[in-house]
Amino acid sequence: MKKIVFAMVLASVTTVGAWSASAEETNPAIVHRQGIYKIMAGHMTAMKSILFLGFAAPADLNFHAQGVLSAFEHMGNSYPPGSDKGETKAKPEIWTQPDKVKQRATDAVTAAKALVAATTGTDKGATVAAFKTMGEKCKACHDDFRKE
Amino acid sequence: MKKIVFAMVLASVTTVGAWSASAEETNPAIVHRQGIYKIMAGHMTAMKSILFLGFAAPADLNFHAQGVLSAFEHMGNSYPPGSDKGETKAKPEIWTQPDKVKQRATDAVTAAKALVAATTGTDKGATVAAFKTMGEKCKACHDDFRKE
Repeated sequence: MKKIVFAMVLASVTTVGAWSASAEETNPAIVHRQGIYKIMAGHMTAMKSILFLGFAAPADLNFHAQGVLSAFEHMGNSYPPGSDKGETKAKPEIWTQPDKVKQRATDAVTAAKALVAATTGTDKGATVAAFKTMGEKCKACHDDFRKE
Repeated sequence: MKKIVFAMVLASVTTVGAWSASAEETNPAIVHRQGIYKIMAGHMTAMKSILFLGFAAPADLNFHAQGVLSAFEHMGNSYPPGSDKGETKAKPEIWTQPDKVKQRATDAVTAAKALVAATTGTDKGATVAAFKTMGEKCKACHDDFRKE
C-alpha cells in the first residue's frame, strides 16, 4: 500500500513536474544535483540579465550571488557510486579523477565567494569581473566532466 | 568603444553561458524571468529528490522552500510591454488577463509561504502536502499562461 501511494504521489509529481529536466530519472543523487545546478544556472541567468541586458534590479545582484554560493553549500553527496548511470551528463572521469573534481569544485566555490564579495559593493566593474570568473569556473568543470 | 566592449563581454558570457536556456535572447525581462523560474525549478527538483527519492538531505528542505519563496520575491517587473516577443513561452493572455495573472501569482506565493512553514517542522506528510500544492499552483499558471 505504501508503495502504491508513493508511486501515485511520484506520478502526480512527475506529471506536474515542470521543474524537472528529466522527469523519468529516479536516481536521487542525479535528480538532486541537477536541481542544484539548475538553481545556480537560474541565478547566473538573472545576473546576466541585470549586468549585461539592463534589467533594472541591481540591488538583487547580491541575492543572486548568495544563491549561487548557497547552492554549492547544499550539494550534499552528489556523486555517490551508481549515480553514473541514468539520465545524466556526468562523464565517467568524475569517478576516476576525484582530485581533479575536488580542485574544480574548490575553484568554483572560491569564485562564488568572490562574486558574493563583489556584489556587496557598488563597483559594477568588479561584479562583472567576478561574474566572468564564476562563468569560467563553471565552464572549466563542464569541459572536463560534463557530456555535451 | 563602450558598445564593442559590451558586445565582447556579452559574447563571452553567451559562449560560457551554460546556465542560459536561450543564450541568444537579449530582452532583459525575458532572460531575467527565465532565470527566476529556473531557480524555482531547481529548488523544486532538489525537494522532489529529498521527499520522494530518498536523497539524504532532509535538513535542506527548508532551504529549498525558502529558495522558491525568495525567487518569487525577486521577480521584479517580469512582464513589461514588449517582452511578449522573443524566445519566450509566455502566452499573449499574460498581457490581456492581468487580473487572472495576479490571482495565479498570489496563489503561488501563498503556496510557497505554506511550503516554507511546513518545512520548519518535522512532519514529512505536511511537507509533502505543501509541496504538492506548490506544484499544482505552478501547473495552474503554466496551463493558462505558458506555451507548451
